[in-house]
Amino acid sequence: MIITIKKNADQQAVKKLIDKLETLGVTAVEIQGSDLTIYGLTGDTTAIDEKRIMANESVEHVTRIAAKYKLASRQMHPTDTIFDINGIKIGGQEKIVVIGGPCSVESEEMVVQLAKDVKDAGGKMLRGGAYKPRTSPYAFQGMQTDGILAMVKAREETGLPIVSELMSADKIDEFERYVDVIQIGARNMQNFELLKELGKRTTKPILLKRGFANTIDEWIMSAEYIMANGNPNVIFCERGIRTFETETRNTLDLSVIPIIKRKTHLPIVIDPSHATGDWSLVESASLAAVAAGADGLIIEVHNDPENAFSDGDQCLKPKRFKALIEKAREIAQVIGRDI
Amino acid sequence: MIITIKKNADQQAVKKLIDKLETLGVTAVEIQGSDLTIYGLTGDTTAIDEKRIMANESVEHVTRIAAKYKLASRQMHPTDTIFDINGIKIGGQEKIVVIGGPCSVESEEMVVQLAKDVKDAGGKMLRGGAYKPRTSPYAFQGMQTDGILAMVKAREETGLPIVSELMSADKIDEFERYVDVIQIGARNMQNFELLKELGKRTTKPILLKRGFANTIDEWIMSAEYIMANGNPNVIFCERGIRTFETETRNTLDLSVIPIIKRKTHLPIVIDPSHATGDWSLVESASLAAVAAGADGLIIEVHNDPENAFSDGDQCLKPKRFKALIEKAREIAQVIGRDI
Amino acid sequence: MIITIKKNADQQAVKKLIDKLETLGVTAVEIQGSDLTIYGLTGDTTAIDEKRIMANESVEHVTRIAAKYKLASRQMHPTDTIFDINGIKIGGQEKIVVIGGPCSVESEEMVVQLAKDVKDAGGKMLRGGAYKPRTSPYAFQGMQTDGILAMVKAREETGLPIVSELMSADKIDEFERYVDVIQIGARNMQNFELLKELGKRTTKPILLKRGFANTIDEWIMSAEYIMANGNPNVIFCERGIRTFETETRNTLDLSVIPIIKRKTHLPIVIDPSHATGDWSLVESASLAAVAAGADGLIIEVHNDPENAFSDGDQCLKPKRFKALIEKAREIAQVIGRDI
Amino acid sequence: MIITIKKNADQQAVKKLIDKLETLGVTAVEIQGSDLTIYGLTGDTTAIDEKRIMANESVEHVTRIAAKYKLASRQMHPTDTIFDINGIKIGGQEKIVVIGGPCSVESEEMVVQLAKDVKDAGGKMLRGGAYKPRTSPYAFQGMQTDGILAMVKAREETGLPIVSELMSADKIDEFERYVDVIQIGARNMQNFELLKELGKRTTKPILLKRGFANTIDEWIMSAEYIMANGNPNVIFCERGIRTFETETRNTLDLSVIPIIKRKTHLPIVIDPSHATGDWSLVESASLAAVAAGADGLIIEVHNDPENAFSDGDQCLKPKRFKALIEKAREIAQVIGRDI
Repeated sequence: MIITIKKNADQQAVKKLIDKLETLGVTAVEIQGSDLTIYGLTGDTTAIDEKRIMANESVEHVTRIAAKYKLASRQMHPTDTIFDINGIKIGGQEKIVVIGGPCSVESEEMVVQLAKDVKDAGGKMLRGGAYKPRTSPYAFQGMQTDGILAMVKAREETGLPIVSELMSADKIDEFERYVDVIQIGARNMQNFELLKELGKRTTKPILLKRGFANTIDEWIMSAEYIMANGNPNVIFCERGIRTFETETRNTLDLSVIPIIKRKTHLPIVIDPSHATGDWSLVESASLAAVAAGADGLIIEVHNDPENAFSDGDQCLKPKRFKALIEKAREIAQVIGRDI
Repeated sequence: MIITIKKNADQQAVKKLIDKLETLGVTAVEIQGSDLTIYGLTGDTTAIDEKRIMANESVEHVTRIAAKYKLASRQMHPTDTIFDINGIKIGGQEKIVVIGGPCSVESEEMVVQLAKDVKDAGGKMLRGGAYKPRTSPYAFQGMQTDGILAMVKAREETGLPIVSELMSADKIDEFERYVDVIQIGARNMQNFELLKELGKRTTKPILLKRGFANTIDEWIMSAEYIMANGNPNVIFCERGIRTFETETRNTLDLSVIPIIKRKTHLPIVIDPSHATGDWSLVESASLAAVAAGADGLIIEVHNDPENAFSDGDQCLKPKRFKALIEKAREIAQVIGRDI
Repeated sequence: MIITIKKNADQQAVKKLIDKLETLGVTAVEIQGSDLTIYGLTGDTTAIDEKRIMANESVEHVTRIAAKYKLASRQMHPTDTIFDINGIKIGGQEKIVVIGGPCSVESEEMVVQLAKDVKDAGGKMLRGGAYKPRTSPYAFQGMQTDGILAMVKAREETGLPIVSELMSADKIDEFERYVDVIQIGARNMQNFELLKELGKRTTKPILLKRGFANTIDEWIMSAEYIMANGNPNVIFCERGIRTFETETRNTLDLSVIPIIKRKTHLPIVIDPSHATGDWSLVESASLAAVAAGADGLIIEVHNDPENAFSDGDQCLKPKRFKALIEKAREIAQVIGRDI
Repeated sequence: MIITIKKNADQQAVKKLIDKLETLGVTAVEIQGSDLTIYGLTGDTTAIDEKRIMANESVEHVTRIAAKYKLASRQMHPTDTIFDINGIKIGGQEKIVVIGGPCSVESEEMVVQLAKDVKDAGGKMLRGGAYKPRTSPYAFQGMQTDGILAMVKAREETGLPIVSELMSADKIDEFERYVDVIQIGARNMQNFELLKELGKRTTKPILLKRGFANTIDEWIMSAEYIMANGNPNVIFCERGIRTFETETRNTLDLSVIPIIKRKTHLPIVIDPSHATGDWSLVESASLAAVAAGADGLIIEVHNDPENAFSDGDQCLKPKRFKALIEKAREIAQVIGRDI
C-alpha cells in the first residue's frame, strides 16, 4: 500500500499516522520527493482500511497494491481448480461445458422435454429457474419448490446435473438436497449475508454471476466471502454489465475471461443470453466466448419462446442450440479443447 | 404499449400474436404505415411481458408507455405522502430532515456522544450501522445486536429516532422492535426476497437506497415490491450511481429529486457522504441537494474520523456538520421550506 | 414515430401540434386508449425533430421507430459492401483482413522493419500513427508528415496498403495523396465538420472508430455524415467503450458485430489493442472477435514495446502477432471464412 | 510515480528499466516488501509515459501521483482567476454569471428579442448557436455566419457579451472578430488539433464543455492544451455525463464544482439544459448548481420552444427564466455571493 502525503502536511500528524500503522504489523518506508512524500507499507495489509487512512487531512492519496483476496487467488493455488459435478468436469484446459435450459421452469413436462433436447444437442447440464428475480412484484415469480422437483425429474430422465437460482438463505436446505449447482444471480452478488450462509451451510458448487455494475475485483471478493466461510467451490459467471448502450440488454465483457484466469484458479462460464437479451445475438457471443477461453456457456433454450413465462426474446430453440454447440465445438478444438 | 412489426413479417404469425394479446384483456389498434405496421395496445398492460412479445420473429420493437408501478405512483395518490416518525415529519413541503451519525457504531459511549452532537447541531434523527455490508469478508462486520442496543441507548438519551441498515430477513423482528427507520442498502435494492419480507413483516418506514447501477424506474419498482406486500411506508434515498468517473466514489444524481417527486408521492432523502466518498465534498453536495428540493439529508458524522472503523474519509466532524446545517437551513428558507 | 399525449392535455394544443406535423409531410393516426392518447406518424420522419415535439407541454413521450440513416442502412442495400484496397478485399463473407503495425511511427527504419514483420506474419495492411491524439500537450505528438512518408516507404518495400489517423481537415490532401485508408479516431467520431470534409474531399475508405461513449446508432449516423457528403466508403472500427470497469483500458463490445451487420451493409473491424490496453489480453480478444464475425482486426505490433513512443503496454511483438494470426485463421475456417 | 514490480521479475530487466528512467531526470527509490518490490520516482515525471513502463513484463502496476497539468493547476496559481468579459466578471468569490439564450439562432429578430428578455430577466451574457453539432446530417445545421451577425446585432441592442460554439479551426478568425466567448462543445473536447489552434490564434476566453465520457483529469488536460499553446483564458463548463440512466439526457455531475476549484484556479459554469434535456428539471438543477458553488449558469431560453429549430424540449420560456434567476440570486446570497 502506498500513501502519498500532502505538500504542506502537519509533520506531527503524519508521524502519528505512521506510528499507528506500524502497530498494525506493517512496515512503512519513506520516500522523500521534491514535491511529495510517499510511504510504502509492506507486510500483510489485508486488514488495513485505506478509507481510514484517507480520513487524515495530511493524506493526498492511498493506493492499494496487493489484492485483498487470498483463497481465490492464483498466487495461493497456481493450478486450475477443476470441479466434478456428477461426472461432468468444469475448469482446467480440456472440456468446455455447455449448460442449457429454460429461463423459468413452467411445468414438469416442459422441463423434461427440454432436458432431453439439451442432452441431444450436446449440452452437459440443465439450467432452469424455479425462484425468479423479477423487477416487478406483479410478474410471474416462478414455480418455486414444484419447479425444483420438476428439475429433479428431468435429471432422473436424462442424467443431466441441474443448476438453479437461489434467492434467499431459507431455501439453502432445499437446494442442498435437490440441486447440483446453486446459481447466485447478479442482483445478489453483494448480498453478503447470503454469501456467508452459502459458505457455512453447503459445499455445493456456487455459480456466482457478476453484478451488473460490479468490478472484477468486487466479484472476486464475493467469491472470497463464500470461500472464507467454508465452501471452496465457486464458479464465476459473466452475464454482461450495465453501460450507456441500450441496443443490447447488457454489454458482455469477455475480457474477464483471461483476467479471471490470471487472478484466480477458478472456472469461468459465460451467459450470452442475459448479456445480449436477444436470441439472434446469442450464437455470435457464444462462439466468441469459447474462442476467448471460457470454461463453459450457460444458454437459455425454449421450445416455444413466444409463450415463455419470462425472457422469451433471448431464448434459442433447441435446433439452433444444437447448431451452436456444433460450431462451438470446432472452435474449442482450434484452441486445444473440446465440448 | 406499442408493438412495431417487421417489414416483411408473416401475416399469419402477426394475427396469432395480436389475437393472443387481446385474450389478455387489452385492445390492439393497428396503424398501417408506408414502411412499418404498428399496434397500440390499450387497457391494463401491467401484466403483459414485453420480452415475450419480442420473442416473436415478426416483431421489430416493443415500447412500454404506461408505468408498471401503481401504489408508488403519483397518479394514484396526487398529494405528497408525509411520514411521522416519533414526531419527526418527513415528506411534504415544509421541513427538511437532517439525519446524522457514524457509518459504524463502534461503542455505546461513542454513539451516545455523537447523538448528542447531532442533536446539538440541528440533526433530527440518528443514523448508525450495526450490520455492515463490507466488500471484504476480512473487514469489520459491525457490532450487530450490541450496536443496535447502543443506538437504542442513544435514542433514550437524546430522543432522536434511529435509522440502521438491515441486511437479512432473519433480523426483521429485531429491527421491528428497536429501530425507527429500516435502511436497505444499495446492494440489496433488488434483493426481492428481502423486499417481500419487509412488506409482510413490518410497517416501519423503509429507507430504500438506490442501487448503484439501477435506473429510477427499477428503484420505484423495488418500492412497489415493499408496498404491494403490505408496507406502504417507503422513503427513497439517492447515494450516487456508478459511472466511469473515479475522482469521486460515486456520481451523485440530483436530477432524481424532481423526477421521483413527479412520478411518485413518496419522500426522497440524499446521502452525500456515500455519493462523494470524501468529507471535503459533502457540504457542497448537501447544499445542492437542499436547493434541488430534497426532503432530507443523511450524513456521516464522526468525532475521530481517522480512527473510524469504516469509511473514515467521508465523515464530517460535528462542528462542520453543524455549520453545514446552518447554511442548509438558509437555503431551505429561500425555497419556502425549513430545517 | 409514436407520440404519447398526457392524460389531461389541452386538446387545442394537441390539435395544433398534429396539424403542424402533417404539414411536414407525415400522416398521423390517432389511438384512443383508456388512459392515454397515442399518435402514430407514418411517412418520412427523417427530418422531424423529436425534441421539438417533446417541448410541447401536452406530450408525455416520443419514440422514434424508423432509423434516421438511409445510405448506411441494410434496408437500402441488402448485400454486403466489399471494398477493394489495392487488391485487399474487406467486407463480405470470405476473407478476414488483419492490419498490424506500431501505435506511433518512430522512424523509417522501424516502420519498414515492422511492415516486413507484419507481412511475414500474415498481416495484409500496415497501420501506423503519424499524427497522434495525446491526452497531454506535453506528450509526443507524432512524426507527422515524415511519419506518413516513412509509411509510404514501408508500402513500397512490402506492398502492404497503409492506414493512418487523420486529425484535422487541413491534412486531407496529404492523406488523399499518400494513405490508402484514413482512420478517424474515437475522439473525432462526432467532429462533424471533419466528417463533412471527409465526404466532400476524398473517396478513400474511412476507418471510423467508435467514440468511447457513443451508441451504435450515433456511430452509424457519423458514417451517414460521410456518406451523405459524398464518400460512400466507410469501415466501422470498434475499439472498446468506456464503462465503470478500470481493469481494462476500455470494455470491448463484440455484440456490435452482428448488430452493425444487421443494421448496415458496411464492414466492421475490431481493435483489441486499444480496447484492452494490455498486450496479454490481445490474443483472447482477437480470437473472440473473429469467432463473433468481425471482417478484420487492427492490432498494434512493435519490435521493442518497452521503448515504444506511445501505448507500449498494448503492443504485441511480431512473433506473438504471427502466432495469433495462425490461430485466428483456424477459427475463421470454422465459420466458413479465411484470413 | 510508483512502479510495482512483479514477484518473480527478472532482476536484470528491472535494473535496465530503472537505469533508463533515471536518465530521464527522475530519481528512483526502492522499497523492498515481503511480496513486492516498489520504486518511487521523484522529480519531474510529466514527460514520463506510464504506458511505456507498463509494457515491461516485469512491471505489475504503475500509479501516477503528481498531476500532468501545470498551467491549469491551483498549485501554480493559488488564487482564483477572474476573467473580465466586456465588464462582466467571471470567476472569484463575488458574482455568479447567468448566460441565457436560444440553442440555435433562428433569425435576427428572434435573437434580438431573446437578448432583451435575457437582459430583463437578469442574465449577463447571451448564448446562441450559429454552427450546430447535429447527430444527423439531415438536421438543421445552423444559420452559420448569418447567425453570428444576428448575435452581434443583439449585442449592439443590449450590451450583452455573446457566447457561441465554434466547430472548426477555419472559423477562428470569424469568432475572434465577432464573438466574446468561444464555446467548445462536448464532442470536440478532445479535438486536440482544434485545441492547439485555439491556443495559438486567439486569446478570447474559451468555454470548454466536458466531453460526455471524459474524466475530470482529461478535461483539465484539454484546458492545459489551450493554455500551453498560448491562450490562458479557459472557463470549464459541465453539461452532464453519459451514464446508464436514460430518464435524463445526461447525468449532471455537480461534484465537479468543488473538485475543479481544488485542482485548478479557473472558473466553472454549469449547463443544466443539456444536462437534463428537460425544461421542467432545469430550475432544480440550476439552484443546486448555485448552492454547490458554480461560478455561472448557461441556460437555454426560447420564446416559442415548441417551434425551436433544435432542443425545444429543454428550453425555458423567458418568464420562467426570470423566476429562476430570482431564486438563484437568493441562494447565492446565502453562500456569500450574488447574481
